[in-house]
Amino acid sequence: MNSTGKVYLIGAGPGDPELLTLRAMRMISEADVVVHDRLVSPEILALCPEGVARIAVGKAPKCHPVPQERINEILVEQALQGRIVARLKGGDPLIFGRGSEEAAYLRAHGIEVAYAPGITAAQGAASATGVPLTHRGLAGSVQYVTGHRRAGQVLDLDWKRLADPDTTLVVYMGVANIGQIAMGLMTEGLDPATPVLVIAEATLPGERRLVSQLDRLGRDVQAADLHAPVLFMIGRVVSLYADAALPEAVMSRARTAAHA
Amino acid sequence: MNSTGKVYLIGAGPGDPELLTLRAMRMISEADVVVHDRLVSPEILALCPEGVARIAVGKAPKCHPVPQERINEILVEQALQGRIVARLKGGDPLIFGRGSEEAAYLRAHGIEVAYAPGITAAQGAASATGVPLTHRGLAGSVQYVTGHRRAGQVLDLDWKRLADPDTTLVVYMGVANIGQIAMGLMTEGLDPATPVLVIAEATLPGERRLVSQLDRLGRDVQAADLHAPVLFMIGRVVSLYADAALPEAVMSRARTAAHA
Repeated sequence: MNSTGKVYLIGAGPGDPELLTLRAMRMISEADVVVHDRLVSPEILALCPEGVARIAVGKAPKCHPVPQERINEILVEQALQGRIVARLKGGDPLIFGRGSEEAAYLRAHGIEVAYAPGITAAQGAASATGVPLTHRGLAGSVQYVTGHRRAGQVLDLDWKRLADPDTTLVVYMGVANIGQIAMGLMTEGLDPATPVLVIAEATLPGERRLVSQLDRLGRDVQAADLHAPVLFMIGRVVSLYADAALPEAVMSRARTAAHA
Repeated sequence: MNSTGKVYLIGAGPGDPELLTLRAMRMISEADVVVHDRLVSPEILALCPEGVARIAVGKAPKCHPVPQERINEILVEQALQGRIVARLKGGDPLIFGRGSEEAAYLRAHGIEVAYAPGITAAQGAASATGVPLTHRGLAGSVQYVTGHRRAGQVLDLDWKRLADPDTTLVVYMGVANIGQIAMGLMTEGLDPATPVLVIAEATLPGERRLVSQLDRLGRDVQAADLHAPVLFMIGRVVSLYADAALPEAVMSRARTAAHA
């Protein structure tokens, strides 16, 4: 353990451990230490080899987060001790995951990095519900945006570009601002009846779904009291939801509320 | 085998078998028959259990494709014989994969479907090259579009919406039209110097990369003679490519050509 270690930046996917890639599993099995976001599910952490140290960092609602700068330092400290570090992130490390920021910091310290991509939440939600991200005649493209901003920062989304009836719009981390997001999209011409699938804890045992539409999305979400992470799929593809009708992980109070 | 079988719609990912999910592996191991797109790599097909029948369908350049209607019928015929059918598609079945079309047809015939999401080409390319799909300060969102249209159909992309310097634009199946795509984006104001990463056969042994920019993209691609599948990552995140500097699967003639 005298030589420098390395860091695997691993996408842990949306939550269901079966959605890990074979590469992620291999990298986890090689690890001397696991550094994980708090949103990485207990079922996935249970796959880490016994006796391997685990360090919880990063974001979870109502938890005091470890600042990104400190996470970077932890990764460097661990690797410089010669360890193989499995850095587990929810979803994909290169989609809203800051994987490239950590990689740049590590490389600047001479530490080797490698990636395992992960199933991102949008894909987890799509495969769980049967609602596609693209579908001929309904959506020719898909866009992922984040609806989260740091306290005091303006939500500076470009509503005109996003209000596209031919694109499926997926909003990550948007619960706090979803009323404003829906309003912005409608103001730029998106049909107020555009269907929206809200999915909380997609692919996890606590998964809950809510079918809504733009002009009542804010109210419906507020009434449903959903647990993070919550994802919004906005667009005509959501009209396929009733047909797709895949079983839900847990029967949803939210959906009942929306239909009441 | 008297009862009705079922169909697993499986994302086979970008090509490297290590990027399959555990669920995809499980579903493949349960299969009585495998129905696969021609772009699914030999390495992945080699994972199918011995003695399991394989039916090649779908698209590959310069191959006569099995029409979608016939693919649907094959799936139904197989399932109605009581078989568990593993329908393997490149990437993710619900992103440019027609998975939802096949699922609708199957359900209309009373056949159960389940999905395994897959690492889509954009994620494969990102993890292989280290170029992120989003990155604070460079790209706050990512959009996937397809640059392919059937013979005689107009490429009806909404250039104004797509020409967004704050979004990473990923173009699937765009080789034939990439000059027109670059022109459309520049006409709507995207900087002609916007960097573009072109990646052919991402994550496969034949992977080749080409770093270009909008105003010479068409020429560079034409000079490089790339093999499908080819993916384009357009946006400021590509400026991170040189820093990321992950090893390439095969040393790229294409990149040399572009820099000549």
